[in-house]
Amino acid sequence: MSNSEHRKFLQLAIDLAVEGVKLDRGGPFGAIIVKDGEVVGTGNNRVTSTNDPTAHAEIVAIRNACQTLDSFHLKGCTLYTSCEPCPMCLGAIYWARIDRLFYACTQEDAAKIDFDDSFIYREIERPIAERQIPGIQLMNDRGLKAFQLWQQKTDKTPY
Amino acid sequence: MSNSEHRKFLQLAIDLAVEGVKLDRGGPFGAIIVKDGEVVGTGNNRVTSTNDPTAHAEIVAIRNACQTLDSFHLKGCTLYTSCEPCPMCLGAIYWARIDRLFYACTQEDAAKIDFDDSFIYREIERPIAERQIPGIQLMNDRGLKAFQLWQQKTDKTPY
Repeated sequence: MSNSEHRKFLQLAIDLAVEGVKLDRGGPFGAIIVKDGEVVGTGNNRVTSTNDPTAHAEIVAIRNACQTLDSFHLKGCTLYTSCEPCPMCLGAIYWARIDRLFYACTQEDAAKIDFDDSFIYREIERPIAERQIPGIQLMNDRGLKAFQLWQQKTDKTPY
Repeated sequence: MSNSEHRKFLQLAIDLAVEGVKLDRGGPFGAIIVKDGEVVGTGNNRVTSTNDPTAHAEIVAIRNACQTLDSFHLKGCTLYTSCEPCPMCLGAIYWARIDRLFYACTQEDAAKIDFDDSFIYREIERPIAERQIPGIQLMNDRGLKAFQLWQQKTDKTPY
């Protein structure tokens, strides 16, 4: 795909960010997903309008594209997002197995308008029990029983 | 809350993981969210059954709890999850502002049954352009226009 095509798709993502602000959907972020030159998914941030803290533009677009393609992965797809993804969205991008992404604003740009995700990057690096949201382990033996059930299941759908 | 109560809620999360395997919802993971001693959200992994790579147990439970509480944050809530959260879910937990979490299985336990998220932790630490899913920046000036619109908006809902 040519650079002008990438710019065209990234502009569509930015347009979705602008539309989201105008329509009170949530924060100023938009994303689209393209496969074989066709838009297969769109999204803008809907955290405040749908009471869903996971409804970042990239997550909304990934969920939308997966419905379009009737698949739980997005191999062969490119993500265009108006801003560099946060750690949550980056994780979703890896689980969706997207090929690559284009972005316009950086995480530093987002921090300047009070969408700062740098604390999450710092927290991820810390031991789980010492984080600001600490994680406490209990009942490992009980938890492993669910894993054993999965391993023994012969008709499962791995992913 | 007493340790026996934490164990009771964590067992409910494990039960949801087991139920998810038995009902073919997806991978062997379950989560519940508790506020003031009451269950306000539940979820199990539904990636393969709903074609949604973001439908991890914790994400499903967070979305469910936010609907129950009619809120886009979960301050004062505790998450009980059958397995240590992946980076995507950890990001969601921070955005949801959950107080703390209890978990049974570790990421190493999950890797042993082929749910390995260690590659995502490694990728997050690398420069965005050098990742296996590379990020390419274009059109920063265009992207910043959406941010300026947000800054100028006087009736916005910040979060």
